[in-house]
Amino acid sequence: MTEIDLQTKSDLIDTALALADAARGPTLAHFRADGLAADNKDAAGFDPVTAADREAEQAMRAVLAAQRPDDAILGEEYGHQPGSSGLTWVLDPVDGTRAFLSGTPTWGVLIAVGGEEGPVLGVIDQPFIGERFVGGFGEAWSEGPRGRSTLATRPPRGLDEAILFTTFPEVGSDAERAAFHDLAGRVRLTRYGLDCYAYALVAAGQVDLVVEAGLQAYDIQGPMAVIEAAGGIVTDWRGGPAKDGGRVLAAANPQIHAAALAVLSRAE
Amino acid sequence: MTEIDLQTKSDLIDTALALADAARGPTLAHFRADGLAADNKDAAGFDPVTAADREAEQAMRAVLAAQRPDDAILGEEYGHQPGSSGLTWVLDPVDGTRAFLSGTPTWGVLIAVGGEEGPVLGVIDQPFIGERFVGGFGEAWSEGPRGRSTLATRPPRGLDEAILFTTFPEVGSDAERAAFHDLAGRVRLTRYGLDCYAYALVAAGQVDLVVEAGLQAYDIQGPMAVIEAAGGIVTDWRGGPAKDGGRVLAAANPQIHAAALAVLSRAE
Repeated sequence: MTEIDLQTKSDLIDTALALADAARGPTLAHFRADGLAADNKDAAGFDPVTAADREAEQAMRAVLAAQRPDDAILGEEYGHQPGSSGLTWVLDPVDGTRAFLSGTPTWGVLIAVGGEEGPVLGVIDQPFIGERFVGGFGEAWSEGPRGRSTLATRPPRGLDEAILFTTFPEVGSDAERAAFHDLAGRVRLTRYGLDCYAYALVAAGQVDLVVEAGLQAYDIQGPMAVIEAAGGIVTDWRGGPAKDGGRVLAAANPQIHAAALAVLSRAE
Repeated sequence: MTEIDLQTKSDLIDTALALADAARGPTLAHFRADGLAADNKDAAGFDPVTAADREAEQAMRAVLAAQRPDDAILGEEYGHQPGSSGLTWVLDPVDGTRAFLSGTPTWGVLIAVGGEEGPVLGVIDQPFIGERFVGGFGEAWSEGPRGRSTLATRPPRGLDEAILFTTFPEVGSDAERAAFHDLAGRVRLTRYGLDCYAYALVAAGQVDLVVEAGLQAYDIQGPMAVIEAAGGIVTDWRGGPAKDGGRVLAAANPQIHAAALAVLSRAE
């Protein structure tokens, strides 16, 4: 991808924030609403898709059609739309649908934009709390109930002092679960259940590690851009690129990343 | 305990809200602050006590000294202070210290007041979100980012349609863990990690069940009053009183309570 000039960077930030704004209405209209229906996309399990997901993605696609018509789009609900600019917006209208369905305010709207190498700008937005985490082009900040602050990941500390997050204790396959619990046994504190909000906490310097498996590109590209702009590292469990999802390790700094990778990379 | 007259009910509500207000400053001053230190109360594990806990309980005790000097106090950090009114305030300045230490906005300030039979009024307050859940004397409401709403628990549904919460997948003893996972295998969705916020979600009609073990009185009395005032039921795993903590089952309605109790009561 060619270098992105300053004007384009500014435009992309404006559009990313406009996308997050556009998703707030549709998501909040359904959050904790009576009779929220969850369709079942996954016959084998419970993969709820709600009206909130669909309406929020539609609202975001309408913003892109108006402001960035030449960019491609990859969205969780409505798939891929080609573009000609070399840039793709990657959208997850409600990351953490299970959290959403249970009234828990740790779901988020995930937005990323980038080229083939991965995202250059990302947003994690939590509409109920009114908290937004933004990172890209070497800058990362949050805006929320207590105003605006710069995001910076934690300095290095030993694994035995680290805080680790994952969404489900079941994690993934048997091998993935074993590797995760091997790591969990070495850290100070393991916490569950936050979905994308855990990545925001890495960017905000609150926790050291997030480990997940079975992710999609739209689950990780927004968080990845925010964490990287705040000084952290996001890779797969072998240290390779994580932009396409799968097994993801998000870390506050290179030292804790290396320590966690040494454990996780043993997974088959 | 003698009947509480209307004026006293109104005074108790005013004081409970004043306590929650008083705890917001000290807790927020430390939440996500750099260098938050966690002392270790529990040599065998990780039971962090922070300055936030201590300062918030001191602030609440100062309110009680001014407004309700004849009431007794039981607080997590500073223990029991006797009173002469027959009423005891039960305070947990930061429930979910692990959530607090990891920057997660699902910790809460728990406040209850009642007599020997248990709490008659309770508050769950989440200062960062600015969300407060109050219940007592047959009324329950929340105030938060979207204003004030009445709290009402969910109508009955089958276990296979229910949403279950607990804080740690490890739950408690081996027998407790086995009973919990037996129940988890029968519900639609099991979620982890919310501490007291999960009880608020029961009161708010978002989830059906919360199961915990190893609780203290101050962990449950505030949530219990809120849930009961919203139409739910809180007992131990045999259907007995839960006001002193231990194994707790919080349920949205008598039907789902009975269904969960039938599973949990098998635990040794």
